[in-house]
Amino acid sequence: MSKTNQLDKQIQFIQILDQLKQVFRQSFLLDQSRTENSAEHSWHAAIAALVLSDYAKGSPDMSKVVLMLLIHDIAEIEVGDALLYKALKDKTRAAREKLAAQGIFGTLPKKQASYFLKLWLEFEAGKSKEAKFARAIDRFMPVLHNYLTEGKSWKKNKITKDQVLKNNKSIEKGSPVLWDQIVSIIAKADAENYFYKTKKIMHKK
Amino acid sequence: MSKTNQLDKQIQFIQILDQLKQVFRQSFLLDQSRTENSAEHSWHAAIAALVLSDYAKGSPDMSKVVLMLLIHDIAEIEVGDALLYKALKDKTRAAREKLAAQGIFGTLPKKQASYFLKLWLEFEAGKSKEAKFARAIDRFMPVLHNYLTEGKSWKKNKITKDQVLKNNKSIEKGSPVLWDQIVSIIAKADAENYFYKTKKIMHKK
Repeated sequence: MSKTNQLDKQIQFIQILDQLKQVFRQSFLLDQSRTENSAEHSWHAAIAALVLSDYAKGSPDMSKVVLMLLIHDIAEIEVGDALLYKALKDKTRAAREKLAAQGIFGTLPKKQASYFLKLWLEFEAGKSKEAKFARAIDRFMPVLHNYLTEGKSWKKNKITKDQVLKNNKSIEKGSPVLWDQIVSIIAKADAENYFYKTKKIMHKK
Repeated sequence: MSKTNQLDKQIQFIQILDQLKQVFRQSFLLDQSRTENSAEHSWHAAIAALVLSDYAKGSPDMSKVVLMLLIHDIAEIEVGDALLYKALKDKTRAAREKLAAQGIFGTLPKKQASYFLKLWLEFEAGKSKEAKFARAIDRFMPVLHNYLTEGKSWKKNKITKDQVLKNNKSIEKGSPVLWDQIVSIIAKADAENYFYKTKKIMHKK
């Protein structure tokens, strides 16, 4: 491939990335003014991973963790963001995300396309120590955001404490220390009434 | 320092970072709906650097380039964003940014604080090959955004072609290939009338 053609493809890919700035997540900014988008979340998670790297299980290669976090949400450009608690029940989502990732990375020159796609798939599989820690950070962040915004997104999306505990337990695989921290944050959130509570008995006045 | 105290400080720092999502730049998103913020710009620039790494001068350590780009705008949390063409004339800005960076990174445990501050200062100094390439990407992005949004921010801020050429020439230090690309983009932008033009003679009808 000529250098010009290669650069054209790369610039085209950089243009596509811009769309992730318009994919909005459920988590609110800490000032509660709006929900955050997936581009700024990816940035935040990448730095958080670096800062919290001491607590990673098995000394992962942090450069790889950072890169994974930078690209982990790219498929959302086509598939959109989904609330974790819904995404886990959506049987076709993983396949649709994979197709989207193949398409988006596929706009790059061949060697780069496979490099990024491989990294993206490794994150999705969650088996390597790098993927486990990157995934731990990706889940740590929204719990922290929710706690610091008084459960704003949990309440809005009717998420209970048990759902949060169950669906974030995998943080432990990447970082037992951060999982302990999350358990303690969840307990504090519960004491403050930040979770949605199912009402089994309806009281009428 | 106890592990708990250390983790508290790190989580505090992660909270502060969130504010960069509310610092808005002059560049517009490619769909022109709004200007971009410094957090999503940092994310975009970090991936762009990776994708364009073949064109970096002197084979910089790309992990370092990525980290620099992730943190390069952090002082803006306190100092705010400034149009490049104004920032270059502001004699006190560099000192104010340095103070802000010291304060923000200073919330981290000591070893991490010095690590990040050193990296931030290296980017600012622009002397290492990593800093030169990171700075080249940081300047490449807004020119690309402006070109792809028909000069929206150039026109709004009354920026001429000569200013863009002059103030982005340093891209060449980090990447002669990308500088050639920018020169060609600027020529196309000029042909399309995307720059502000000073009118020396006013015509009256």
